[in-house]
Amino acid sequence: MEVRRMKIGIIGLGLIGGSLGLDLRSLGHQVFGVSRKAETCERAMERGAVDDAHTHFGLMQETDVVFVCTPLAVMKSTVTELVPHLFEETVVTDVGSVKGWVVEEIAPLWPNFVGGHPMAGTAESGIEASQRDLFKEAAYVLTPTEQTPLSAVQRVEEIIRPLGTRIYHCQPAEHDRAVAWISHLPVITSASLIAACLHETDPAVFELATALASSGFRDTSRVGGGNPELGVMMARYNKAALVRSLHSYQNVLAQLVEQIEQEDWASLETVLQQTQASRPEFLK
Amino acid sequence: MEVRRMKIGIIGLGLIGGSLGLDLRSLGHQVFGVSRKAETCERAMERGAVDDAHTHFGLMQETDVVFVCTPLAVMKSTVTELVPHLFEETVVTDVGSVKGWVVEEIAPLWPNFVGGHPMAGTAESGIEASQRDLFKEAAYVLTPTEQTPLSAVQRVEEIIRPLGTRIYHCQPAEHDRAVAWISHLPVITSASLIAACLHETDPAVFELATALASSGFRDTSRVGGGNPELGVMMARYNKAALVRSLHSYQNVLAQLVEQIEQEDWASLETVLQQTQASRPEFLK
Repeated sequence: MEVRRMKIGIIGLGLIGGSLGLDLRSLGHQVFGVSRKAETCERAMERGAVDDAHTHFGLMQETDVVFVCTPLAVMKSTVTELVPHLFEETVVTDVGSVKGWVVEEIAPLWPNFVGGHPMAGTAESGIEASQRDLFKEAAYVLTPTEQTPLSAVQRVEEIIRPLGTRIYHCQPAEHDRAVAWISHLPVITSASLIAACLHETDPAVFELATALASSGFRDTSRVGGGNPELGVMMARYNKAALVRSLHSYQNVLAQLVEQIEQEDWASLETVLQQTQASRPEFLK
Repeated sequence: MEVRRMKIGIIGLGLIGGSLGLDLRSLGHQVFGVSRKAETCERAMERGAVDDAHTHFGLMQETDVVFVCTPLAVMKSTVTELVPHLFEETVVTDVGSVKGWVVEEIAPLWPNFVGGHPMAGTAESGIEASQRDLFKEAAYVLTPTEQTPLSAVQRVEEIIRPLGTRIYHCQPAEHDRAVAWISHLPVITSASLIAACLHETDPAVFELATALASSGFRDTSRVGGGNPELGVMMARYNKAALVRSLHSYQNVLAQLVEQIEQEDWASLETVLQQTQASRPEFLK
């Protein structure tokens, strides 16, 4: 596939920004990075994630597209600071894991804005964790609204499609509800599992539990033992959808607890048959 | 290490029984199997998991130790049928995932009984899934009581130690509380996650959720999408300890939900810091 060579800006050179840079440069694009830390700019250049990088926005002037890859907490101030430097045709897109808030708060700052969310990551973070092919086969959600220029969406797609992504379009609210189910709810249910175990008051039982825990506990507790700041961010910026999913989860759990207390094994088995049968739908 | 050659019986030739047989034979023991199905006996012999196998207990007569590897639901009837065939010095042990019930119901049937639980398994089951070295580095819990002869415990340890197991001793009730936390509670919280997602009423959001689910959802939902019969069995035979863990989990979850609803991000972050810091204790 012929790739039209573009000038691409990446603001925030962490796992996502750095990995984007590596792939986009290998596709022939020119990639310019921005990071608050000079040391990160240096490392991004050494790793080949960018052609050039600075701590200021000067290099963003003539870019075709800018990917904002900062944490949500600093995204608004970043984009506010960025836009005076842009040529008016430049398309701005973000990679934030919440889209309703982004489209409400960031889109008004720049007409050529497209909300985006690549569903990719590793347990690591930072420029040193950046890697090639992180987005291969990964879902990449775009959330254009009625105000988003079609040309802006097309330009973002032209860049992200050759990365091997599966592109989805949806409303920001639909995105936020979907990720509340499969990404944000699991963090809270998994953290609750670890926190509940810490409530065991018999030291012998607690010690035995830690000694006996194996793959089942390892998997179920993984996302609940992850980065606390990320967990708070997703709760903060996706509060409504997360609370909606949490209430539904609490109801389902209460039902299962009652079935166990009432020794209603037939109903419990029916639920477990449904969950066994349904799980593969989520792992296609 | 010199291994004293023994005659070992294995009743129930599934994943655990078959894998035990493979390792014990390779250590030089003679292994005799029993299965309800002639076909399973045949396959166990073909795979080298047993020296000989039958659908009746005749071969158990001169064994030094018998491992009962049947599901909990048929364990009592199996041992009741087994014991008239045994030489009085034979030690009987089981591999059931619940120990309070076993020690109460099975131990009285045979004086030389030692409750046991190897914490090993795979997603598969049945004789075809049996494999060498399944117990290497795995925890193996023994739950002798004051009535259990020391010689019986020693004989079981003499057999399971060379498999590479880490042997733990504890009270049956301690075992059941520990596995409720790290093995049985995760099944219910994980199943509730899948079941809650199925409650999404907007088809577009549901479809998007299934499309976007990736490694976080895969891991958190794994044990909740497992064998329904096993899930019911563990709830049934470990009800008291599981309900105790579930109530604690519900309380912790309700606290987190309230923190999110109240936007008490500092408290939420404190909990997530605790869970991040504590998880490695369970994965030593």
